[in-house]
Amino acid sequence: MHIAIVGCGQLARMLALAGIPLGLKFSFIVNPDEQKDTACIDGFGTIACWQKGVAIGELYIALGRPDIVTIEKESVDLGLLTELEKYCKVYPSAKSVFYSQNRYHEKLLLEKLDIETADFKYGNSLESCVKSLGYPLVIKSISEGYDGKNQWRLKEQADIAIINQQANIENCIVEKWVSYEFEFSMIAARSVVGQFVVYPPTENQHIDGVLVRSIVPASQLEQAHIDTAINYIKKIMRELDYVGVMAMECFFADGQVLVNELAPRVHNSGHWTQAASITSQFENHIRAIANFDLGATRLTGSAGMLNLLGAGVPPLEVLSSQTSLHWYNKLPRDGRKVGHINFVGDSREEVLADIGAVELLMNA
Amino acid sequence: MHIAIVGCGQLARMLALAGIPLGLKFSFIVNPDEQKDTACIDGFGTIACWQKGVAIGELYIALGRPDIVTIEKESVDLGLLTELEKYCKVYPSAKSVFYSQNRYHEKLLLEKLDIETADFKYGNSLESCVKSLGYPLVIKSISEGYDGKNQWRLKEQADIAIINQQANIENCIVEKWVSYEFEFSMIAARSVVGQFVVYPPTENQHIDGVLVRSIVPASQLEQAHIDTAINYIKKIMRELDYVGVMAMECFFADGQVLVNELAPRVHNSGHWTQAASITSQFENHIRAIANFDLGATRLTGSAGMLNLLGAGVPPLEVLSSQTSLHWYNKLPRDGRKVGHINFVGDSREEVLADIGAVELLMNA
Repeated sequence: MHIAIVGCGQLARMLALAGIPLGLKFSFIVNPDEQKDTACIDGFGTIACWQKGVAIGELYIALGRPDIVTIEKESVDLGLLTELEKYCKVYPSAKSVFYSQNRYHEKLLLEKLDIETADFKYGNSLESCVKSLGYPLVIKSISEGYDGKNQWRLKEQADIAIINQQANIENCIVEKWVSYEFEFSMIAARSVVGQFVVYPPTENQHIDGVLVRSIVPASQLEQAHIDTAINYIKKIMRELDYVGVMAMECFFADGQVLVNELAPRVHNSGHWTQAASITSQFENHIRAIANFDLGATRLTGSAGMLNLLGAGVPPLEVLSSQTSLHWYNKLPRDGRKVGHINFVGDSREEVLADIGAVELLMNA
Repeated sequence: MHIAIVGCGQLARMLALAGIPLGLKFSFIVNPDEQKDTACIDGFGTIACWQKGVAIGELYIALGRPDIVTIEKESVDLGLLTELEKYCKVYPSAKSVFYSQNRYHEKLLLEKLDIETADFKYGNSLESCVKSLGYPLVIKSISEGYDGKNQWRLKEQADIAIINQQANIENCIVEKWVSYEFEFSMIAARSVVGQFVVYPPTENQHIDGVLVRSIVPASQLEQAHIDTAINYIKKIMRELDYVGVMAMECFFADGQVLVNELAPRVHNSGHWTQAASITSQFENHIRAIANFDLGATRLTGSAGMLNLLGAGVPPLEVLSSQTSLHWYNKLPRDGRKVGHINFVGDSREEVLADIGAVELLMNA
């Protein structure tokens, strides 16, 4: 069986590393920009470059006629996916990916399924949004938003003119700012025949919109809230007839779970599953799209994940009995995710202490 | 950092797959025979062919000047290792590997360290061995013995003539046959600076000399026996200033631990560590030879391993919530190890039942 992945970053790398032991072959679809830096996946299979205008049949043959195409990112040309569906299976489907490319339609989907999210407006002026939602607000571009990019915070009237200048408001949703207690994510897998598994919720700590740390279990959450979150992601995946791993980012605010956004792929907040779950999110994505039975998702201890941002060489000195390192072979750039460290421990407190010690070591 | 591995089989494959996430580069030293079938490690690094007569300096350059050379098998030319030691680090050392290539010297090493083994004779006629050790006996070639090959069982006088015909007795040791209750193995890692970790003992079930199943924990063993076995492997590794993973195969007989043989490498009976330990034997071998801190070896549940022998395609139907599959991409041949299935469970009984169910499924 042969799986082609759209993208050539660390998620493609870790998907391939999870699938190679199953005897699967991989190939990669990159764009001309990505083609300059494929070190993450070099050696793991054929790399074919595609851009708008290149015939999909030619791409399909250049890849070596894959059985399944999947993605490592949501910013993928939907026309490419739709056309590939004529040649082979594409999971998740173009339709599933569409919602993550368009925050407005994502919000409508969540509303349709009675899933709680932050109040929002679309297609109104900022003044009118302030009138109905109050301060503070967050303005989010409908598309091309990730790692906190293309977002603006509106705290007072003076911000309105600035944001109107920087943002194309017609292409944004305007959301009530949520003063959340913490952020967490749910990661689930659904197979071709509808088998569903979900990992324990992960607490996520961001700095400037970029995920820095994940901790499991997210022990601040009561079982009732976990059940609500599981119910939400299950409903979404069933509605979309979704196949593969999906991540659902949530806020916990005022005793309530609010869904913030969806990612139609393996997710940074699920990297700890490599160290502290029976089956990693990467292997379960492969199993889901290949229609193999899904692997167990239970936690084998407390765990954590620390992203490595912008470093040039793997910090091998952080290895200890409780840590493992995943280095992506990427060219270093300021703030770029170049690797992550997974932590295991007997308790959340132990994991937090170990993460803190490694952060100190690396900043020393 | 760049590690060259002597060999290109499944152990080389799994070592590379464990080291790639650490950002390490790999290359492989093969002989002309092995060069015909390198599918296990294709894509993972440069492959250089070596045979006696080829200058080691040329090999070193063809590999791309590795920092460390290691092995995936004990049947490796010791001259090659000794020469490579002039160019880079070689772990385990040629001296460490020597003992596993020569059963007689291995026995002498164990005797020297006061480690219990089956009684044996070397350099005597079969008749004289029978006189001092009694029936039954097992005749083992000093070298080139693995998976039960080059071994003969001597049960009665009539066997003597047959064995004298088939075996070169001068190149054999003659051992008292041990009626053991069960076989188990110890897998340990020792780093360049002498850090030592050991996995829980694994019960091994062989058929016709070939390992078929492993089970952990080996709950028939009392703690005192486990302590004895840990003490044995620790003494051996310290004596040899051993660096890397070593496996020690043992018999449990008459309430006593007897060491059967040593393997200077990652071992088939440690494959379960991929599924049910914090750190796999493959990652700990890499960490040991690269002198990184070693990873925790504790068991995260009960586990088992079933070898796949001779199959032509990966049996993906065996995947379940409790199983994972490791396929080696090898050409199928009757009885050849082409993959393995790892099992996890809450108890030894559950794992044994799951292994039994998969065996039934595959034989159906």
